[in-house]
Amino acid sequence: MTDATLVVVAGTTETAAIDGISAAGADPTLRRHTPSADLEIVADGRPAPDSPVPVSPSGCPTPAVVTRAVRDRLGFEFVAVDAGLAVPTATPTRAVDADPGGDIREADPVPDAEAIFERARAMAPTLGSGDVAPDAEILLAETIPGGTTTALGVLTALGERPIVSSSLAANPLARKRAVVEDGLAASGLDPGDAAGDPIAAVRQMGDPVLAAAAGVVVGAAERGVRVTLAGGTQLAAVAALARHAGVDRRLPLATTAFVADDPTADLAALATDLDLSLTAADPGFDESDHPAMTAYARGEAKEGVGMGGALALADREGVPAADVRERVATITDRLLAERGDATARATGATEPRDGGDSP
Amino acid sequence: MTDATLVVVAGTTETAAIDGISAAGADPTLRRHTPSADLEIVADGRPAPDSPVPVSPSGCPTPAVVTRAVRDRLGFEFVAVDAGLAVPTATPTRAVDADPGGDIREADPVPDAEAIFERARAMAPTLGSGDVAPDAEILLAETIPGGTTTALGVLTALGERPIVSSSLAANPLARKRAVVEDGLAASGLDPGDAAGDPIAAVRQMGDPVLAAAAGVVVGAAERGVRVTLAGGTQLAAVAALARHAGVDRRLPLATTAFVADDPTADLAALATDLDLSLTAADPGFDESDHPAMTAYARGEAKEGVGMGGALALADREGVPAADVRERVATITDRLLAERGDATARATGATEPRDGGDSP
Repeated sequence: MTDATLVVVAGTTETAAIDGISAAGADPTLRRHTPSADLEIVADGRPAPDSPVPVSPSGCPTPAVVTRAVRDRLGFEFVAVDAGLAVPTATPTRAVDADPGGDIREADPVPDAEAIFERARAMAPTLGSGDVAPDAEILLAETIPGGTTTALGVLTALGERPIVSSSLAANPLARKRAVVEDGLAASGLDPGDAAGDPIAAVRQMGDPVLAAAAGVVVGAAERGVRVTLAGGTQLAAVAALARHAGVDRRLPLATTAFVADDPTADLAALATDLDLSLTAADPGFDESDHPAMTAYARGEAKEGVGMGGALALADREGVPAADVRERVATITDRLLAERGDATARATGATEPRDGGDSP
Repeated sequence: MTDATLVVVAGTTETAAIDGISAAGADPTLRRHTPSADLEIVADGRPAPDSPVPVSPSGCPTPAVVTRAVRDRLGFEFVAVDAGLAVPTATPTRAVDADPGGDIREADPVPDAEAIFERARAMAPTLGSGDVAPDAEILLAETIPGGTTTALGVLTALGERPIVSSSLAANPLARKRAVVEDGLAASGLDPGDAAGDPIAAVRQMGDPVLAAAAGVVVGAAERGVRVTLAGGTQLAAVAALARHAGVDRRLPLATTAFVADDPTADLAALATDLDLSLTAADPGFDESDHPAMTAYARGEAKEGVGMGGALALADREGVPAADVRERVATITDRLLAERGDATARATGATEPRDGGDSP
């Protein structure tokens, strides 16, 4: 057992609807469900009956499966934060009263960035185990389709190295940069104009998950709660926001080898810029011939929903990578077997219900 | 072990600030914290560090303590629903996007009643255990200071028997009726005008907890999930709303002997009117000389936060009442020992924080 609590900050941004920038869901409609279903998978091992199984357009299952696989082995605590979900989730959440984020090509995609940040900051000390043992630790993670594009927006606005990874095997970085340029123009910003003003960076170029996650890091720093950033370039953007908010404590970043080795995103350089201690976990998925794991080995999905942090925890607690892989295969097979029905229900969810005895 | 899941719908109404109608918190400011802290007590056995301990003006602790005492013995599942909390809670909640309710002496205290009802209705099938076993059961409970007054408002608007119990030993029924009369006048209603229109009854005379709880009962009925109404006259008002929405299945109401024996509230007659199978649990608090339990024996608090339902569950599962009493004493002593500090922090919570490294 471990004292670590995984905190997954989940939300949405209309930026994810831009063609070709996200693989976190098979299409834009299903992508709106992805963060809600990701929470359900980490909480219960499967999506709720009415949620679709999040898969990429090529069928690669969400990294929430890997996080859940480790949780099945280690039993760590899990807290979900609703930072702008577009679709209800069956998982109980801590609330920061965030709306879904707007498209960053418009002027203020997160008008409530400051309020979201402050509520998350106040919440931070209560996210770990109830008694906040001195050795309590938060693993802070995200799920938000389109999140690497908003992360790029924030890094650019802050004047940090403008490089991010992708859930697609081929990182559409040029497309993301064009989106960010449109966003800067709409907000009347030049790169670096929001340096030292993280709230402005998120309000004008970010998403509600970044606002909440940055608030958690700042609030945890104020109260001496240890935080590990469990993710890739999106969590690096969270770290950048915290640094620009004045946090100067040690910040570990635990990600996957898939992100760390992504040649299009020089995460090591970004970590050095931001003084983050970087670790990258390799689950050995290339040793498996299961389709889910070969998709990761091909460079799909890569990270998210705390996958890298969970793998680091498994490693620290002595869980063999082969055990994790076996569990990933089992969960994936179950999800995909159940997939057809749930997806059909989700896409039909806007149709009128049958009567029943409603008023 | 039991397959029952306790669902506590928690919220607030400005009606609770009316002088002399609620004992669910020592004063109106602290009363705004009561539902948030009640959830924390059921979830964790104590309020979060920044929450006050809910006690009546005379020092009687919240019925959440009794519910938690039973949960310590039986380990049943617990789901919290945020139906208009005024203060953040450290307990993860299912959301129905409800704002705190307004004062029922104004025209539309719950303008979003229909949307809240519909979201709760859609959520109902996912509230029990993940797999919705055929023998899964929901115990539906509430925590909302001022809730018996809004319940009286709804019963009156529906044309049902206008009788409710109270968290005060001396039920201020005349005062509640005057409040309801003001509310009817403000909404242009005569008693019974909202018969057959439960949404209108809640929107004009109710609170957001009633809207959500009624939605859960209707949604559960549609999907064949068993529901026990775990509470007193407020849950009877929920039953009335469900009946006026057309629900005609069996609806058990499990409350405490303190409510069932309240001579000012003829719950048995109300249960007969609404075709509810009524059970009343007697925890034998008069056999204890612990101050918390003697307060209940004197008629304070009486019910709430699922107390009656939890006691019925304890009885069904063979937990001796003496065990429950012992656990109530232990939890109460711990809470009251910790009370001074937390209450001071809560009442000082609006003061500016110290700097730290915030932006």
